[in-house]
Amino acid sequence: MSAAHDAIEVIIAKREGHELTDSQIDWVIDAYTHGVVRDEQMSALAMAILLNGMNLREISRWTAAMIASGERMDFSGLSRPTSDKHSTGGVGDKITLPLAPLVAACGVAVPQLSGRGLGHTGGTLDKLEAIPGWRAALSNEEMFAQLEDVGAVICAAGTGLAPADKKLYALRDVTGTVEAIPLIASSIMSKKIAEGTGSLVLDVKVGTGAFMKDLDRATELARTMVGLGKDAGVHTVALLTDMSTPLGLTAGNALEVRESVEVLAGGGPADVVELTVALAREMLAGAGREDVDPADVLASGGAMDAWNAMIAAQGGDPHAALPVAKETHVVPAPTTGVLTRLDAMAVGLAAWRLGAGRAALGDDVQAGAGVEWHARPGDEITAGAPLLTLHTDEPERFERALASLEGGYDIAPSGTAYESTPLIHDRIS
Amino acid sequence: MSAAHDAIEVIIAKREGHELTDSQIDWVIDAYTHGVVRDEQMSALAMAILLNGMNLREISRWTAAMIASGERMDFSGLSRPTSDKHSTGGVGDKITLPLAPLVAACGVAVPQLSGRGLGHTGGTLDKLEAIPGWRAALSNEEMFAQLEDVGAVICAAGTGLAPADKKLYALRDVTGTVEAIPLIASSIMSKKIAEGTGSLVLDVKVGTGAFMKDLDRATELARTMVGLGKDAGVHTVALLTDMSTPLGLTAGNALEVRESVEVLAGGGPADVVELTVALAREMLAGAGREDVDPADVLASGGAMDAWNAMIAAQGGDPHAALPVAKETHVVPAPTTGVLTRLDAMAVGLAAWRLGAGRAALGDDVQAGAGVEWHARPGDEITAGAPLLTLHTDEPERFERALASLEGGYDIAPSGTAYESTPLIHDRIS
Repeated sequence: MSAAHDAIEVIIAKREGHELTDSQIDWVIDAYTHGVVRDEQMSALAMAILLNGMNLREISRWTAAMIASGERMDFSGLSRPTSDKHSTGGVGDKITLPLAPLVAACGVAVPQLSGRGLGHTGGTLDKLEAIPGWRAALSNEEMFAQLEDVGAVICAAGTGLAPADKKLYALRDVTGTVEAIPLIASSIMSKKIAEGTGSLVLDVKVGTGAFMKDLDRATELARTMVGLGKDAGVHTVALLTDMSTPLGLTAGNALEVRESVEVLAGGGPADVVELTVALAREMLAGAGREDVDPADVLASGGAMDAWNAMIAAQGGDPHAALPVAKETHVVPAPTTGVLTRLDAMAVGLAAWRLGAGRAALGDDVQAGAGVEWHARPGDEITAGAPLLTLHTDEPERFERALASLEGGYDIAPSGTAYESTPLIHDRIS
Repeated sequence: MSAAHDAIEVIIAKREGHELTDSQIDWVIDAYTHGVVRDEQMSALAMAILLNGMNLREISRWTAAMIASGERMDFSGLSRPTSDKHSTGGVGDKITLPLAPLVAACGVAVPQLSGRGLGHTGGTLDKLEAIPGWRAALSNEEMFAQLEDVGAVICAAGTGLAPADKKLYALRDVTGTVEAIPLIASSIMSKKIAEGTGSLVLDVKVGTGAFMKDLDRATELARTMVGLGKDAGVHTVALLTDMSTPLGLTAGNALEVRESVEVLAGGGPADVVELTVALAREMLAGAGREDVDPADVLASGGAMDAWNAMIAAQGGDPHAALPVAKETHVVPAPTTGVLTRLDAMAVGLAAWRLGAGRAALGDDVQAGAGVEWHARPGDEITAGAPLLTLHTDEPERFERALASLEGGYDIAPSGTAYESTPLIHDRIS
């Protein structure tokens, strides 16, 4: 433990709008990890940080202190460079699934430690667990071996990484202190830096279905995280990408695995392909492999081979039939015209209410549940043709899912000009 | 429990600078009292209140909700009107001791529920407990009977009054959220209103030895409390009084009892007499007894009779010798001249370090410990004559007490004009 401080002194310093010193930050994180600083003290400090802010020096030290609270992985012994991606979470965001094997097939190792979903955005592990036999838990040795052999691993983060962050994250969730950019940025970056990746690409989502609803705050978050990566010696780039419309054509665990496999097979929705390739380019550049074009590797089938190897290495059968929900309900297009808006939050809530997500940590999710949409904004639709298909094992869930979709889309008369939102708003490096 | 709310919703509303609704306030106080809202949630809310404020409507409702969390006393059945006084705490502030019997002798009953001291300002109960045999704990029936017979009672507040405040007060103490005027004002006023007094006079201290160091914040606190009293139907007046210099000539438990008895006998330091009479006038006016002059009653010996009866009713012997500390240490005046400053905080800390106060709840205090000063600002002093006398049972305490007095007083050349600070800065009604 560093020089002695006192919880009240640190709280009052931030409450009065002062910068916290390195020593205060090191002490408070260490003391919180060990229960010396109590939950009710840390929540008061978190609220003071939310309202009075922290500058980049403070956030960088805070992040370093959270990393120092636990173990730090080291992949420098691998025969290839490493790169990872983190998304702040969106509806239909299955990009990690095709991206990790694609980058691996390009010669860069991807050590992706993921989480489970809570709320309206799905979790990558929940999606992969729809694949029969696949397991999320790997030992550090298994992870290292798989990175060397296959080049990509997506697994559950162990409890040893940034334990201070785990404790603080759970506290923020119940104390109205989630929405503080310094705390969001340090939470994400402490885990990603502790994970030991050599370079990192951040997909910062912005729009109705994202955590950040407006571009200004999303930009501030992205800039903060890029700064933290730089301070920690991890090459970090952020893309600000649209999450007003859900990605692809599906939201739900098995549904998204199926769509990801389509992308790996050279098909799939254009936006998923575009974002996968754009993020792959950034990851390769971060690892010094600008010479490889991921679009070529995707077309060659190399990414599909890496996917099959990655799934099989974790006990999964990449060729097994995916689970299907017991019940479906089709929503027909009410009129003929142009779909001009499909709201990501409405779709995400519907998928969640159908059983694809969980309300509380520890809940089960349904592998087959979710939403398919048969048109994307800009598409012409015909009255009576299927617009959405809802999937669930429990038909009593349809009613609340349909309620969340009310007002979630707009249809304009046929021929109305549609101006699409760019998928990638900005790049911050 | 009122309409269902949610802790996070209430925290976020205040975090975003919104007014809390009556229903939100009622719910959060009730839920906190019953452990439904957790300490870490309430501390985040307290910090949001400290930084974003509450308006008088919110504070008034918050106060009412804290009162509603427990029992409320009722003295309307007494044969005389009631009035009480609350001081925000100062060094050498023994005013309650002569004031309560003085007001009782003027025909108005004083139901004073007091606390013990923590930190550099002493507690009224600690002072009275220096009197052999005196006991602080009374049942409600004993309190009522004593108010009817003697007219004054100073006793410990039962645990039934405003339990929400007790819980919140302890939480604020460890979470850096003490210094929020809405929370200070509602804490004081919830206890005083629940205590059932018909009228109330607030002695809001301002200066180095007070909780409020500057007049602006002290005025804001006084205005807020007067507003809360009015909203609750309790006639409330506040005096803003000086606490840059300690009151009287002593700080310490038995020392202050002795000085209080001197005042009741018609002597005592002029400032203690002035403030006692000024507060008595306000208490009498609040109870509709402007016709009685407390200065006359003090001079007549009636207040001393009431004191003797009050102490005896609670088992004390008003004529017994008071405890004396085992050791004393005299600080002589270093030069001849005019004492131009004696800092209340320095004296308060010295008395505390000598054993008159406690560092933690539950600590014992020494009845005889404390500081006497032999001159007040404006007095001429002579080099080598006693300036201060320190009292303690544990001589190892002298060193730290002397350290706290360093720089705590100024002496100017003899004949230097001294402009005294007024004792009463303002009156707010």
